[in-house]
Amino acid sequence: MSDTTTKQADASTITRFLRDLRQVRRFRPDAVPTEVERDILEVARWTGSAKNVQPWSFIVIRNPETLQKLSKLGNYTAFVAAAPMAIAVVLDGTNPRTEWFDEGRVEERMMLAAKAHGLGSGTARYAEGAINELLGVPAPHVVRSVVGFGYPDEGSSGVRGVQGGRKPLDDIVHQERFGSAQ
Amino acid sequence: MSDTTTKQADASTITRFLRDLRQVRRFRPDAVPTEVERDILEVARWTGSAKNVQPWSFIVIRNPETLQKLSKLGNYTAFVAAAPMAIAVVLDGTNPRTEWFDEGRVEERMMLAAKAHGLGSGTARYAEGAINELLGVPAPHVVRSVVGFGYPDEGSSGVRGVQGGRKPLDDIVHQERFGSAQ
Repeated sequence: MSDTTTKQADASTITRFLRDLRQVRRFRPDAVPTEVERDILEVARWTGSAKNVQPWSFIVIRNPETLQKLSKLGNYTAFVAAAPMAIAVVLDGTNPRTEWFDEGRVEERMMLAAKAHGLGSGTARYAEGAINELLGVPAPHVVRSVVGFGYPDEGSSGVRGVQGGRKPLDDIVHQERFGSAQ
Repeated sequence: MSDTTTKQADASTITRFLRDLRQVRRFRPDAVPTEVERDILEVARWTGSAKNVQPWSFIVIRNPETLQKLSKLGNYTAFVAAAPMAIAVVLDGTNPRTEWFDEGRVEERMMLAAKAHGLGSGTARYAEGAINELLGVPAPHVVRSVVGFGYPDEGSSGVRGVQGGRKPLDDIVHQERFGSAQ
């Protein structure tokens, strides 16, 4: 197999992998192995950020009591109670314009790293304030979201496809200037 | 090979792939094949977003004149002039709190999809305003960033590792509550 052929194969495997990521909100109770946790954090650590500021740190949460409290702190965050592990992304809180973008990048990668290990994950979004207190995060640091991780509960409905479909490409792609789509 | 063994192999291949993504800012002049462009856009299309709003559309730019203008419109955006293709992410402009996060998710994935095909890519950031005008984007839609794509110019320096290293895990990971790191 030529090098080019290998690359093609990898490309389709990886792009399929990327396309197939979905939010998972139902988990089996099995713990997330620590080597998987470490792998997710390593992928997070190497994420690119504006000017390489790396405006983040990560709180790994396995305490069921904390997970329970997190599940009640936001809207649509109930699923966190059943996640065996969650990771909160702590932002430096100095530049929302770039930090919120970088937050999206790093959470997307953690979810992909989890998927590579057969785990599911889902993002939970919080208003600023109460969650800082719960996790002992001092200002100006800010927590806006948490990712819950666990092995997907394949038996229950709503494991995948929670978010439904996507708009067709023709509706969202323009050529050269805005307005060629729609 | 058992299914578990296969999964393990995939996991390490994919997490290495994720860890290795770097900004690329020097490109060969070769065009990006249209099937690769389509694959990148498909991966973008399937990206998750808050409440599945999909608050985006994408402008594919190959016109050298437009790329030239884009290169002069921001700070650190000069590299866009040498990219054979760029994709601008147009946000709906109604909810920065979630849209800037979703913007990070979708650009991270486009960069990963490009890497799967052997392409390099780099993000270019813009102040709002002039870029909207250049690309014909009407308010309230907003463009804050563009991703430049192309085959990496391996011959020149600065192709990889532009952003330097990363903080060690011990400095950025806390257990259960903030403060166990640092």
